[in-house]
Amino acid sequence: MEIVKGSGFVPGELLAKINSPADLKGLDQTQLQQLCDELRQYIIDLVSVKGGHFGASLGVVELTVALHHVFNTPYDQLVWDVGHQAYGHKILTGRRDVFHTNRVYKGISGFPKRSESVYDTFGVGHSSTSISAALGMAVASRYLNQKDKHHIAVIGDGAMTAGLAFEGLNHAGVENANLLVVLNDNCMSIDPNVGALKEYLTDITTSHTYNKAKDKIWELLGKISKFGPNAQEIASKVENAFKTTLLKQSNLFESLKFRYFGPVDGHDVHRLTQVLADLKDIPGPKLLHVLTKKGKGYKFSEEGNETVWHSPGLFNKDTGEIIKVVPPTPQPPKYQDVFGHTMVELAEKNPKIVGITPAMPSGCSLNIMMKAMPDRAFDVGIAEQHAVTFSAGLATQGLVPYCNIYSSFMQRAYDQVVHDVALQKLKVIFCLDRGGLAGADGPTHHGAYDLAYFRSIPNMIVSAPMNEEELRNLMYTAQLEETPACFSIRYPRGQGVMVNWKTPFKKIEIGKGRKIKDGKELAILSIGHPGNLVTKALEQLKEQGIDAAHYDMRFVKPLDEAMLHEVFSKYQKIITVEDGCIMGGMGSAVLEFMADHGYSAKLTRLGIPDQFIEHGEQSELYEECGFSPNQIATSAVHLIKDQNNKLSQSA
Amino acid sequence: MEIVKGSGFVPGELLAKINSPADLKGLDQTQLQQLCDELRQYIIDLVSVKGGHFGASLGVVELTVALHHVFNTPYDQLVWDVGHQAYGHKILTGRRDVFHTNRVYKGISGFPKRSESVYDTFGVGHSSTSISAALGMAVASRYLNQKDKHHIAVIGDGAMTAGLAFEGLNHAGVENANLLVVLNDNCMSIDPNVGALKEYLTDITTSHTYNKAKDKIWELLGKISKFGPNAQEIASKVENAFKTTLLKQSNLFESLKFRYFGPVDGHDVHRLTQVLADLKDIPGPKLLHVLTKKGKGYKFSEEGNETVWHSPGLFNKDTGEIIKVVPPTPQPPKYQDVFGHTMVELAEKNPKIVGITPAMPSGCSLNIMMKAMPDRAFDVGIAEQHAVTFSAGLATQGLVPYCNIYSSFMQRAYDQVVHDVALQKLKVIFCLDRGGLAGADGPTHHGAYDLAYFRSIPNMIVSAPMNEEELRNLMYTAQLEETPACFSIRYPRGQGVMVNWKTPFKKIEIGKGRKIKDGKELAILSIGHPGNLVTKALEQLKEQGIDAAHYDMRFVKPLDEAMLHEVFSKYQKIITVEDGCIMGGMGSAVLEFMADHGYSAKLTRLGIPDQFIEHGEQSELYEECGFSPNQIATSAVHLIKDQNNKLSQSA
Repeated sequence: MEIVKGSGFVPGELLAKINSPADLKGLDQTQLQQLCDELRQYIIDLVSVKGGHFGASLGVVELTVALHHVFNTPYDQLVWDVGHQAYGHKILTGRRDVFHTNRVYKGISGFPKRSESVYDTFGVGHSSTSISAALGMAVASRYLNQKDKHHIAVIGDGAMTAGLAFEGLNHAGVENANLLVVLNDNCMSIDPNVGALKEYLTDITTSHTYNKAKDKIWELLGKISKFGPNAQEIASKVENAFKTTLLKQSNLFESLKFRYFGPVDGHDVHRLTQVLADLKDIPGPKLLHVLTKKGKGYKFSEEGNETVWHSPGLFNKDTGEIIKVVPPTPQPPKYQDVFGHTMVELAEKNPKIVGITPAMPSGCSLNIMMKAMPDRAFDVGIAEQHAVTFSAGLATQGLVPYCNIYSSFMQRAYDQVVHDVALQKLKVIFCLDRGGLAGADGPTHHGAYDLAYFRSIPNMIVSAPMNEEELRNLMYTAQLEETPACFSIRYPRGQGVMVNWKTPFKKIEIGKGRKIKDGKELAILSIGHPGNLVTKALEQLKEQGIDAAHYDMRFVKPLDEAMLHEVFSKYQKIITVEDGCIMGGMGSAVLEFMADHGYSAKLTRLGIPDQFIEHGEQSELYEECGFSPNQIATSAVHLIKDQNNKLSQSA
Repeated sequence: MEIVKGSGFVPGELLAKINSPADLKGLDQTQLQQLCDELRQYIIDLVSVKGGHFGASLGVVELTVALHHVFNTPYDQLVWDVGHQAYGHKILTGRRDVFHTNRVYKGISGFPKRSESVYDTFGVGHSSTSISAALGMAVASRYLNQKDKHHIAVIGDGAMTAGLAFEGLNHAGVENANLLVVLNDNCMSIDPNVGALKEYLTDITTSHTYNKAKDKIWELLGKISKFGPNAQEIASKVENAFKTTLLKQSNLFESLKFRYFGPVDGHDVHRLTQVLADLKDIPGPKLLHVLTKKGKGYKFSEEGNETVWHSPGLFNKDTGEIIKVVPPTPQPPKYQDVFGHTMVELAEKNPKIVGITPAMPSGCSLNIMMKAMPDRAFDVGIAEQHAVTFSAGLATQGLVPYCNIYSSFMQRAYDQVVHDVALQKLKVIFCLDRGGLAGADGPTHHGAYDLAYFRSIPNMIVSAPMNEEELRNLMYTAQLEETPACFSIRYPRGQGVMVNWKTPFKKIEIGKGRKIKDGKELAILSIGHPGNLVTKALEQLKEQGIDAAHYDMRFVKPLDEAMLHEVFSKYQKIITVEDGCIMGGMGSAVLEFMADHGYSAKLTRLGIPDQFIEHGEQSELYEECGFSPNQIATSAVHLIKDQNNKLSQSA
């Protein structure tokens, strides 16, 4: 990783001296408080200018300082869940002076990452892994006889709704391992948290008396027993009934055999250090419930919309004004917003349509429908598996659910797609947002595998639109009575290509591609948005006197066999372009067609090579993967010259 | 489905008249009890002779009768979780006279299946889907204004440990939909249930007083208040602290906003019908905790080992003797047992090795290691996601976890393999049992997609042994210090091919295949156990004077490029054979190699075609898929004659 030092950002006096958590050990409470203030200011200074996640890291400043003060990191294993709250952690663990490269191509990652620092014990990006991972560490330490080692999972209340977190709790409760789960309760995922668990946590928190109730009852029972022997006996019976049954399981986490502590104020660094120090001496699985506020300590995020301040983009730190660059000419919309608005349009026409998102209403723009038709759009929490099976249940009753899940998160629900939807041919329409290279969020968020893993599933229609109009028409086609189950539509993060995108709906024939242009020397087959990169490559090729045909496959499954017969009858040199893994992806589907039909042609597959791709701008990553317009053109030239094109090789 | 009627099995007098649940409506309590007895006997009669799952269905006989008696199925939606307990349900819903075809090729499925009966509201096989599915149905009914419709999920305590079930509960708790979850608590998965939830349920059950405690406390508080105004005031304060906080969330399910009822005796059909009838009038999400015993009502299964009686094979119903056919000559072992014994051998040599299974210790034979080394082998419950991330956590501390998950269940942990293991290059060794066509369990259990979905993942070594020795050597190679992460080994259900299988360990070079025999006219490339089908095919071809080469690929990734260069330099006609989907599988990997290196050859891919394959004997299913020895030979003949081989086409 090349990192240019000397960012021009000036840390506070104390923060400037913190080069590793060891430097926190000697600080007194006043200094710890000062460090929190400086750390918070440094995050505000940087994120306002450089962008990135914001609210979550501000919310855990005190917790971060307290954890590194109390625990012996990196020997003690500190696991951050999801990880977009770990900016403070990164700054305190030797990355202060490179933090301005956060989320930049070749810079540091926006998430904890094992290869980046020994303090990053477990790489993240997806949620709810921390309890399982920390439990694994704790069980290993037990086996290795490292009895003094602590293992801490810091998990938000949003992440706690995912099944994986529950599976981890269920196992941890019966392993006698040294595990501390810190529940960072801020009532939020990216959007407000939903579900029964959230309401439960709110109850604990808002009733105040909840955890004082035990003490209070003991106290009162003591008073009762003063009213003579008979009362004493009765009080004792109450106490027993209470103690042996209700009390020891009066808390959800205690039911799961965790010792529960809290709730404590997550912005009181003094109290946090005390409590954490006490917990070091308590063996076994324990949970500390910490109350925090996303965006804490910055006036505008504290007062503003927490979802907006989750990742606000650039802003004026003095005025709180979020900087919106207004382009001089009208711009194409984001694919996300086309999805959101089109959902409402379609649902207005077809009363069977409902929408489902697992905790991404603002990210995928289902919030537009949730606002317009609150009884027909569901945020089910961070729960991809449930989102799919719940959709399948809706479909059994004749409804038509559009289940929107980011491509990389859909990996969590692969079995449910196979077992609950495709096997039963239920009419669930999957909309896979963030298909392909997702950008600054990096390898955990790239939607690299969906075309490959979806096309293996029987009964699955696998499509990807090249532009907004195509997205709308695919969404329209999917819900038609005559369209068979199951249908998937994937599209990338970010902007499309059509300023006037709100075109009338047209039915698309299933498995029918589009010839965009005829050609002579070779044919380029693309799927989805990268077709627009091909369009640019064709211009370059034209300048070089090369006339390449361009076909938009539209469907990876079923393939447009008629179109492919035309392609292979006419062209001997073919390039396939996809924003997905080339191991098993669209190009491989085309190779299968060739083999099945006895065609031979030189075929170069462009797409995401067989490696994990780091973070960066999408255009930088296209370049890294070898399918930027330039590189497509170069591949075409190579292919025509009949050279071996190294770009096509996956090894 | 062709079903031969007239099985020779004679149902009891009452059961003989039950052709649909409508026939249960008029029965009085005595008749219901009689029906339970006859239903149980019919299951014993049939399963003892025909085989199948046993213990689970016996355990829910009374519950099944009560549910169909009380609820208006199929209008009311009854969802069975997992489904191997649904034999009674099938027999009562019009399938009594075809039930002897259960799990037989072309016969009825061993699991609920929508295409088989309108009473099977949701197809299953994998666990823990019922709450999400039934909630989807309930929310749809609410939207469709079908207020009188009931939705019942019947889920075991084992299935309740999976994250999907928790995600469903978390969402259901806040949806005002008409959902009843029946928790069938028998303390078992296939093996004894594990985890904190199980202990919690045991606490509720064994303390007896648990749910009486509330009543008792109210009663006592009433008595206290008789001791004068001061005592009254104090009692009232206790009551308030109690009521507003602890009491309403004193139960884990109540914490999740479910109304909790029970526990009730699941073998008291009278009581069950009463309670279920009462619950019909209670709106919103509710949970009924029912205590049952697996194998109930059959002496030998009640007294015997519940894991054995889960699916005992054939048995003498009068003596309880399980019929073991002793073959006249020594037989090859099951791959499962080779895995189990080899784990212990390797772990004895390498102290870093640990074993993990999600609730399949007897199925995958990790129970051998759990017995030999209880501190190094973990059953984590039905929790595939956690199994993988927990393994990743263990690996961060330098341990070498072997994580054994059935291929089709690994679909549940795909994201964890990508995000927690492969991306971080952690040394977790995946052993995928039940790779390929699993047999009588049918489409939910076939491991069809793993080769395709694993080979798309960067850093993943994808291997499959052709026999026991190869399995042992791959397991040995995987744990060597110098072997890079991540390693996967897949093998099928059932018997291998080597009687003397306990061969000395030998290291296998990563990505190195085996030439089994040279040939002339064509080459057959196989991966894994189907190589043995190729061996048989070669004998047939030899008789026809055809000399085919045979290569065992061993690795789908990395491919043995040197070997493939040899193959494509020498042969123009190639067949690939795999026990996995041909969309994106090993054959496609070979096509990618061809394209990348400019080879042209006629290539026929044999494997699981692009459709869901039903249940049957493995040999019947090979035939159905077109890669039985006969069919491999026929494909070779066709290819040599240069005809289009229709078997190779996936469409």
